[in-house]
Amino acid sequence: MRLHIPVHVRWGDLDAYNHVNNVQMMRILEESRVRAFWAPDARGSGVVDDHTPPTAIIDAAAGSTTTTLIAGHQIEYLLPVPYQRNPLDVQLWISRFGGASAEISYEVYCNDGLAVRAASTMVFIDSETERPRRISDAERAAWADYLDEPVQLRSRG
Amino acid sequence: MRLHIPVHVRWGDLDAYNHVNNVQMMRILEESRVRAFWAPDARGSGVVDDHTPPTAIIDAAAGSTTTTLIAGHQIEYLLPVPYQRNPLDVQLWISRFGGASAEISYEVYCNDGLAVRAASTMVFIDSETERPRRISDAERAAWADYLDEPVQLRSRG
Amino acid sequence: MRLHIPVHVRWGDLDAYNHVNNVQMMRILEESRVRAFWAPDARGSGVVDDHTPPTAIIDAAAGSTTTTLIAGHQIEYLLPVPYQRNPLDVQLWISRFGGASAEISYEVYCNDGLAVRAASTMVFIDSETERPRRISDAERAAWADYLDEPVQLRSRG
Amino acid sequence: MRLHIPVHVRWGDLDAYNHVNNVQMMRILEESRVRAFWAPDARGSGVVDDHTPPTAIIDAAAGSTTTTLIAGHQIEYLLPVPYQRNPLDVQLWISRFGGASAEISYEVYCNDGLAVRAASTMVFIDSETERPRRISDAERAAWADYLDEPVQLRSRG
Repeated sequence: MRLHIPVHVRWGDLDAYNHVNNVQMMRILEESRVRAFWAPDARGSGVVDDHTPPTAIIDAAAGSTTTTLIAGHQIEYLLPVPYQRNPLDVQLWISRFGGASAEISYEVYCNDGLAVRAASTMVFIDSETERPRRISDAERAAWADYLDEPVQLRSRG
Repeated sequence: MRLHIPVHVRWGDLDAYNHVNNVQMMRILEESRVRAFWAPDARGSGVVDDHTPPTAIIDAAAGSTTTTLIAGHQIEYLLPVPYQRNPLDVQLWISRFGGASAEISYEVYCNDGLAVRAASTMVFIDSETERPRRISDAERAAWADYLDEPVQLRSRG
Repeated sequence: MRLHIPVHVRWGDLDAYNHVNNVQMMRILEESRVRAFWAPDARGSGVVDDHTPPTAIIDAAAGSTTTTLIAGHQIEYLLPVPYQRNPLDVQLWISRFGGASAEISYEVYCNDGLAVRAASTMVFIDSETERPRRISDAERAAWADYLDEPVQLRSRG
Repeated sequence: MRLHIPVHVRWGDLDAYNHVNNVQMMRILEESRVRAFWAPDARGSGVVDDHTPPTAIIDAAAGSTTTTLIAGHQIEYLLPVPYQRNPLDVQLWISRFGGASAEISYEVYCNDGLAVRAASTMVFIDSETERPRRISDAERAAWADYLDEPVQLRSRG
């Protein structure tokens, strides 16, 4: 089972080649991760959009108990992505649990089809001690339905 | 009458102060302008979102007949904007017609209220001749309902 | 007397029109402000580049005593700026002192000449109380040599 | 032998965690690639900075004969990078030649040491035909001195 996070392209994501810039595609993956896994900020106004999934439970906003760091990314670009007004369909799931980390796999669909495959390793840091902290039972339970095989990447053979 | 363009904040728009960065707010205004006034790209897949307003008629994508340039902006920040999952409500309207230019006025509402007032001067360039070209009758007609007084800015006294 | 802050364009600052995007130009102004007025971060490694001017004395990094907020910008674009490998020459000076704020004026020169004129109002916030705090005597002394008339903007008549 | 490309961090590259954002680090890699491998734009003013290396010979600006596309990236983050005023030292070299592509390897050093290891696959597209084109003899000769083993990445085992 996959999470489907709609993320809008911005015209400002295009580069001089008139396609979504490869770096900005990673910005879009970042936004999908935040929307998929971070709890709506309790210190905010409490307004939640319609797309907040049940997996959005890490208390990870700046100043809160957890800091999520990225240990690495692997990304492959299959299609150039032009500006489109409807959102991209970012599909993501957990492809590996470590003790204090998880691998996120992604496929991004634009109007022309599958545009990007990627995987990121996200590490959970205790904001107090600044050291990795274990994935909690609540997190593991909330995410269990979205655990699947890693995305197929050419670079992994 | 105002256009209401919903634009999502991205977590990546925050700066080290943990608020939407003042420069990124201008990126959000840019996106609202494109969605309000540019025609969906005829060379694209033709998929249009639900929010495309009747004012979206300039053929301004890179490589098309018109290039829109920004002559200037004035912007005032009234509230810090935290990350929010629901979109900002960017309200915009035309506050002045020139021969080959228009002034756009904006008010941006976040969950905490009115956060930004701004105005931009947009110039219409003929992509062939690279010279300003007059606003067409079709454009003027499509935009007539959204012509109103300029936004109130402190800097204008 | 003006500060001259060299800021490099990045290819990623270009938009689909193949010029430095108008929003990214404000990113470049932000960088010039930080380099002109913020003290090198005492918590950092202490390495300072050759261009740190005597005006760089606000302790404004995230987590320090002062937070600098932007109340507003006015910006006018005079020339399209293509990618260039040598830095832009961002000239800036203080054009007005308020009690807890200062107006910064800018002129940006690219290889083709004067490309941008702008002014920003920067407000000094006490990070503890989150309220505006007065410009200190040390700041006023460090900046006195760079006080001059406001930049000429068409929008100011 | 490695190319050493100095790239300045911008304060705007920091995210709400007060470190250079992982996505912006890829923007910095992009800039190092452009400076290392692209010819200074012949249609520009012809001003070249002091750091243009002998490898900078691809005619790749928008509208020119070659378009360089990114097929994929692999990146690993070893240290958080705070804002620093002196440039990062981006070291890069070619770690594999394909027929119409090359793999670039990178190591990025900040004031605290080695911060990032990465590799990108860059594909050379003929702008006319929009199809991959072979690396020219001139390119291969200009780059031969900077061919070395791929960067060590954990994800490659």
